[in-house]
Amino acid sequence: MTEARKLRMGMVGGGPGAFIGPVHRIAAEMDGKIELLAGAFSQSAERSREAGARFGIDPMRAYADYRQMIDAERKRRDGIDFIVIATPNHLHLPIAKAALEAGIPVMSDKPATATYEEALELEAAVRKAGLPYGLTHTYAGYAMVREARAVCAAGKLGAIRKVAVEYFQGWLSGPLETTGHKQAAWRSDPARNGPGGAIGDIGTHAFHLLEYVSGLKVAALNATLRRVVPGRRLDDDCNAFVRMNNGAAGTLACSQVAAGERNELLLRIYGESGSLEWQQQDPNRLMVKWQDRPEEIYHAAAGYLSEDARAVARVPSGHPEGYLEAFAVLYREFAEALDGWKQGHANPLPPTLPGIEAGVRGMRFIERAMESHGREGWVEF
Amino acid sequence: MTEARKLRMGMVGGGPGAFIGPVHRIAAEMDGKIELLAGAFSQSAERSREAGARFGIDPMRAYADYRQMIDAERKRRDGIDFIVIATPNHLHLPIAKAALEAGIPVMSDKPATATYEEALELEAAVRKAGLPYGLTHTYAGYAMVREARAVCAAGKLGAIRKVAVEYFQGWLSGPLETTGHKQAAWRSDPARNGPGGAIGDIGTHAFHLLEYVSGLKVAALNATLRRVVPGRRLDDDCNAFVRMNNGAAGTLACSQVAAGERNELLLRIYGESGSLEWQQQDPNRLMVKWQDRPEEIYHAAAGYLSEDARAVARVPSGHPEGYLEAFAVLYREFAEALDGWKQGHANPLPPTLPGIEAGVRGMRFIERAMESHGREGWVEF
Amino acid sequence: MTEARKLRMGMVGGGPGAFIGPVHRIAAEMDGKIELLAGAFSQSAERSREAGARFGIDPMRAYADYRQMIDAERKRRDGIDFIVIATPNHLHLPIAKAALEAGIPVMSDKPATATYEEALELEAAVRKAGLPYGLTHTYAGYAMVREARAVCAAGKLGAIRKVAVEYFQGWLSGPLETTGHKQAAWRSDPARNGPGGAIGDIGTHAFHLLEYVSGLKVAALNATLRRVVPGRRLDDDCNAFVRMNNGAAGTLACSQVAAGERNELLLRIYGESGSLEWQQQDPNRLMVKWQDRPEEIYHAAAGYLSEDARAVARVPSGHPEGYLEAFAVLYREFAEALDGWKQGHANPLPPTLPGIEAGVRGMRFIERAMESHGREGWVEF
Amino acid sequence: MTEARKLRMGMVGGGPGAFIGPVHRIAAEMDGKIELLAGAFSQSAERSREAGARFGIDPMRAYADYRQMIDAERKRRDGIDFIVIATPNHLHLPIAKAALEAGIPVMSDKPATATYEEALELEAAVRKAGLPYGLTHTYAGYAMVREARAVCAAGKLGAIRKVAVEYFQGWLSGPLETTGHKQAAWRSDPARNGPGGAIGDIGTHAFHLLEYVSGLKVAALNATLRRVVPGRRLDDDCNAFVRMNNGAAGTLACSQVAAGERNELLLRIYGESGSLEWQQQDPNRLMVKWQDRPEEIYHAAAGYLSEDARAVARVPSGHPEGYLEAFAVLYREFAEALDGWKQGHANPLPPTLPGIEAGVRGMRFIERAMESHGREGWVEF
Repeated sequence: MTEARKLRMGMVGGGPGAFIGPVHRIAAEMDGKIELLAGAFSQSAERSREAGARFGIDPMRAYADYRQMIDAERKRRDGIDFIVIATPNHLHLPIAKAALEAGIPVMSDKPATATYEEALELEAAVRKAGLPYGLTHTYAGYAMVREARAVCAAGKLGAIRKVAVEYFQGWLSGPLETTGHKQAAWRSDPARNGPGGAIGDIGTHAFHLLEYVSGLKVAALNATLRRVVPGRRLDDDCNAFVRMNNGAAGTLACSQVAAGERNELLLRIYGESGSLEWQQQDPNRLMVKWQDRPEEIYHAAAGYLSEDARAVARVPSGHPEGYLEAFAVLYREFAEALDGWKQGHANPLPPTLPGIEAGVRGMRFIERAMESHGREGWVEF
Repeated sequence: MTEARKLRMGMVGGGPGAFIGPVHRIAAEMDGKIELLAGAFSQSAERSREAGARFGIDPMRAYADYRQMIDAERKRRDGIDFIVIATPNHLHLPIAKAALEAGIPVMSDKPATATYEEALELEAAVRKAGLPYGLTHTYAGYAMVREARAVCAAGKLGAIRKVAVEYFQGWLSGPLETTGHKQAAWRSDPARNGPGGAIGDIGTHAFHLLEYVSGLKVAALNATLRRVVPGRRLDDDCNAFVRMNNGAAGTLACSQVAAGERNELLLRIYGESGSLEWQQQDPNRLMVKWQDRPEEIYHAAAGYLSEDARAVARVPSGHPEGYLEAFAVLYREFAEALDGWKQGHANPLPPTLPGIEAGVRGMRFIERAMESHGREGWVEF
Repeated sequence: MTEARKLRMGMVGGGPGAFIGPVHRIAAEMDGKIELLAGAFSQSAERSREAGARFGIDPMRAYADYRQMIDAERKRRDGIDFIVIATPNHLHLPIAKAALEAGIPVMSDKPATATYEEALELEAAVRKAGLPYGLTHTYAGYAMVREARAVCAAGKLGAIRKVAVEYFQGWLSGPLETTGHKQAAWRSDPARNGPGGAIGDIGTHAFHLLEYVSGLKVAALNATLRRVVPGRRLDDDCNAFVRMNNGAAGTLACSQVAAGERNELLLRIYGESGSLEWQQQDPNRLMVKWQDRPEEIYHAAAGYLSEDARAVARVPSGHPEGYLEAFAVLYREFAEALDGWKQGHANPLPPTLPGIEAGVRGMRFIERAMESHGREGWVEF
Repeated sequence: MTEARKLRMGMVGGGPGAFIGPVHRIAAEMDGKIELLAGAFSQSAERSREAGARFGIDPMRAYADYRQMIDAERKRRDGIDFIVIATPNHLHLPIAKAALEAGIPVMSDKPATATYEEALELEAAVRKAGLPYGLTHTYAGYAMVREARAVCAAGKLGAIRKVAVEYFQGWLSGPLETTGHKQAAWRSDPARNGPGGAIGDIGTHAFHLLEYVSGLKVAALNATLRRVVPGRRLDDDCNAFVRMNNGAAGTLACSQVAAGERNELLLRIYGESGSLEWQQQDPNRLMVKWQDRPEEIYHAAAGYLSEDARAVARVPSGHPEGYLEAFAVLYREFAEALDGWKQGHANPLPPTLPGIEAGVRGMRFIERAMESHGREGWVEF
């Protein structure tokens, strides 16, 4: 029963001190389609082996370098089926290119690359390789985000007129990057992170969620970026006006100095006859507010939801699913896409799974936001 | 016991079809310091008498014209002590000026006037008359708005860095002004409303609340206004970036085409060490979110609140107060100010009660927002 | 235009230290149909005059004794039209009887009397007098309680199967009655309060709300009462099983030692196909949960509500109304009932306004709960 | 690096149509310490193989019978380290006994057995075998349940006086067991389920949560059970009064006919100076309400939480964890206990992991509730 063989995953990054490594492992393996079998978890051979041991990986397959991993794994009969990239941003492009050139599909942390130019380069590499490339815009994996997307696609709100998306965190309210905090350190360093601070780290999530759910594209924006914490080298608080390709307009805001907020990602979309509201911290509910009848709460896993939303539920309604489950939905879809690709499908990625196109748009968004900020005015997307 | 005599109020506007007339009456009379005894409720003598009868007013004191009311009342020994203006905006200035010139203090619906120029004219008239002038920015009367103001004033959040205020309604999602709806009709007519649509009607509330609570002033703004409903003559959806006089920055948004929203006024203020959040539709709670300790919910009428917040509670904690009670707080303070003025106090208005200064700033805000919109960029306040 | 004359109210009790006096005054006068003109606010003549002065009442009409007030007022041409009773419970019966015997209608704080036997005596007196008698079960005045009642009456939930009502407060978590706190003192004294502590003070509210909304009657109950705070003479925490007259069953709980709760009155009613939930601290929303479709939130003052609910709204949807407004709805209905009675209507009280029948049932509830507690088992109602 | 070897799990039950099989698999494997390698998923050999294939299991290790699995696996060098029981209740005892007698540790779905007598028999078997036995009272695995337990244990609320726990579902509002629904069918059949319906299925969860968090024991109870849906053979709606071993008292309620509820498990515990509230459908927050200071919201994964609560967090605060993660916490602790047991620890189960004692108490609770119901009165526990 060969269809039951799990896909073999190799991870780059995600080693000691990175919370995202275990998250990728849990998410990838959750639905029983993937197993983590190899990794270049750290640039130190010893730390990579340590991380591998914690993941229960054969020490032979805990590499000190991604190139080494790619070389060694492609020679094994039981070599990895794909790699996941969980490193600081500046390594995304070289790793992804190396994998693609070696014929290995890629699942990547967002943002796709460190700069927009790199994203274009990566896009070309993905096209040339003809291999599946997925991007872990985690929030796209929530059942109620899928439902919100279905509500918009079905036109239930009428024509969309107004949008408001915000992503507020408080964890960088102080100069955390100066205290030895690894996550904060690389994210605040233009060389490793790229030029966008909060706009890149979380603004891209908000941007993706907005387009993903609304089915619209941002056509123009006017962004203002701030560096609030003294000495910080990248933006930590951003506000933008956006115009969508159908004429709707609104705001996109993100901040990592919103003291007291943990992970407040809030999306609101207003149509002619009603609106929807989704909050990441209360992810199993979708508020749908009608102009002329009672407000509704849609609950995850309920029988009345769209097929897309029901398809991703693992437990009955009333049993909360969260961030890891959303992440795992993307991995499940990526695994299915890999199966499809192996069977020769030309375009195996389902429309619900973010790929290189979303990656390029995200990097374009950062680039456009910075351009707009510099000009103090509107720019076309 | 002369101190017990109720102040006599005369109302202009607020007649048939206006929900705001009864609201003013209830709010004014709630704390037992004021009674409505006269009115020019409508420009039709008959309809004014009808409205007066519903209010239980002597038919002799139900006037067809505010000038007539002012003339007649000043001749009575038991004439009105002040007037309240509850008309469409274009009448605010002439009525207020007439009253002030006749020596009658004024309590006015916001916005203070129809245009910024008028506001300056009114300000001069108020100064010249030396009479109390109050402005019913209702939300300033909520206990938990007072508490939020006290939290900011005490510096509990650390230096304020970021602000976000929004006021979303959906009632103008369709062309209501073309259906005979009186409220919508005059608000959509530049001649009666002034040049600002949503920005004037509710944006000014958001603006006032922001300055009132934070203790800061808007120093610059970049606003974009839209007319979403086809055929509408005034803006119905607005977004603005704001910069505060201490360097903090953020957003101010308002909309009357946010389908499904009823009266979503939400204020968030972020300091170095924490933030606060207040929603008008859940007015008896104030959320205070700390960076390093548990989030707190402050409840109205609780013993641990600031003196300012406790002073306005009428019922024990857990018994909700609402919009009418907030409105009534302003009337109570206005009544106390009138008493102070009668006793010769020079500056009788307490700092908690919005007056002409707030009125001028509000009109300036509309004017600046329109200027910014025209320029598509930042303007100093 | 005599129909516009306000009804003249005389208050008994509600003097210094009682928060309920001003609450009655505000609620009674809110809708412009009633004015407070006389009172026996305290048994001390001086304190009664002081209270009267604060209410702006003619000192001649601030009496030291309710009998004196009744005698004096019935001789005046402009004497009071009704009295409101806002005293400790043990005085409810003698005051009400004296008023009724003098031909004066009565609006009374709940509970109707101090004991069940007194309630029967009062019922006889009300019947004999043929005068309007109202009971201020405040929560019955909330718009969304009216809506919940309409939802049940229309059978929208299917047959009702299960009920759960609870009323939790924390203010008596300590021995407040020993500290000079007036409210706590008389409520903890069997001689002034009657035999039911929490069960009488707030259990009766829960009981009334349950029957009022469901349209059902409690047919049997099994109650257990506790005195949690050492030295307390009356129950302060109670739980009961209830069986309704249609076979539905559930629980009724109340407590005044639920530390941390302010005024948590929560009603849930479950039918065959859905359920409703209403919380007094969030009174402008009614949750309606369906078995097979999205949960709904009904908002106060919305156009889709029942006529009964819309009838009591004073401000547009999204502008919160609270406890005082609910209280005032009962006064408005009482005023209308008085008008009807003056015009000779036999049964002027509308079914939405609690009267003597509700009063007797409430006292019966206390008596039955104590009987059940003594027997440690079920009793028929 | 032998410490990294994953524990090998064999599952009994959880085959086609059972949502709980995949849930156990996901939860067991989530933290990388366990892998599912064998199973007797169904009593049909073919269906067991099908289920095994979906789980990616070697067809040789997909057994048709648990006895067969136990025999075969103990002969393998790489045989299973423990079994998990995910069958209807009546099979729990024979499977657990067979495993224990074969020297195989057991992780079991709750309730431990079908009857109290069986629970005692199982307890003896566990004691005799001296093997780890865990019980998946899932809710005990939530971080904020751990925090609530820590708050109580630290005495922060003062002496506990009052408790209220409820677990309301609506999925059995109709006669679902007559429609071919497998879950409903066995749960409504006394032969497969045992004598307790809702009281056994979810009442035991409520009971366990109450004791687990409060640190107290139920000392007496008075329960009333109903069969609401006509034709149903087991209780579907239950209410109970409880008395705790410290003198505190309160209620325990459960229902599966609460139409419109999904999985409303709510725990409230009241002490002298404050209270806590936790809802399973909003699991990442713990409300802590103080009598004299602002209410607090504790957030999962926050730095200020107790060590016990922080220990179970997998993602940063603000990233929701849910039901599967809570389940997985129990598996993680079970895996650690197994490691401890292999190293010769006498009592390897941590106090946070429910074991046979909790299993026996749960079955005792059902038995006592039925006894109380039959007597219509209180019973000692």
